[in-house]
Amino acid sequence: MTAYDSNNIFARILRGEIPSHKLYEDETALALMDVMPQCDGHCLVIPKQPSRGLLDTDPAVLGAIMPVVQKVARAAVKAMGADGFQLRQYNGAAAGQTIFHLHFHIMPIKDGATLKAHAGLMADHAILAKQAEAIRAAL
Amino acid sequence: MTAYDSNNIFARILRGEIPSHKLYEDETALALMDVMPQCDGHCLVIPKQPSRGLLDTDPAVLGAIMPVVQKVARAAVKAMGADGFQLRQYNGAAAGQTIFHLHFHIMPIKDGATLKAHAGLMADHAILAKQAEAIRAAL
Repeated sequence: MTAYDSNNIFARILRGEIPSHKLYEDETALALMDVMPQCDGHCLVIPKQPSRGLLDTDPAVLGAIMPVVQKVARAAVKAMGADGFQLRQYNGAAAGQTIFHLHFHIMPIKDGATLKAHAGLMADHAILAKQAEAIRAAL
Repeated sequence: MTAYDSNNIFARILRGEIPSHKLYEDETALALMDVMPQCDGHCLVIPKQPSRGLLDTDPAVLGAIMPVVQKVARAAVKAMGADGFQLRQYNGAAAGQTIFHLHFHIMPIKDGATLKAHAGLMADHAILAKQAEAIRAAL
């Protein structure tokens, strides 16, 4: 397997070198807004421990991160007034992965809505900040 | 939240009332082939404990099921000779959920391939049986 590149965007966010719209943080994970959202409230949960994807992640980290995913998803759905959500996690360029640090996508969806393309347009940061505030308030 | 319906297909599979192409089973989870696959080797991991989706699942069950997802995904990618995989999990009809028992989709993907539609055509069971055999051998 290819080695982990510690200059990927999420590694830099975890080191505080790049700003992000943070939602939640604990010893295992960080939750933040996706800056190229496929829907309102599209957010991400990433482990602090470096790994490229699901297969090279310590199973103990996977076990610890999923309750965080659940907690953040519940808040994102509530804050966005969504009717459901998709959880997605991509492994390898063939599967659409663009940042090689494990990340879980949480995408709140309203009835009848469709998702925009993955890794598409950069969102307005003022809008992301407002959504992030609403999600943090729902945590 | 809507109550869990114990007559959903996965509950019936777990009770042994409906056959399935099983890949792996332990005290927490069952892994099986998706009968309406979006790609070769499309398989599912479901918890034995009943829940509709991610939000009503015991966090301890989530913690225990993810190492199973990892194990089965590794085998599915290897057995299919895939270059990556997507993990997906749908919550609510708005998000495309069709069976209301928590399930994680593991979809091995080769370079340049695209996924077929979710909940589309029923696959040939002989093909599923062969793929299941290859994945079990890679576990």
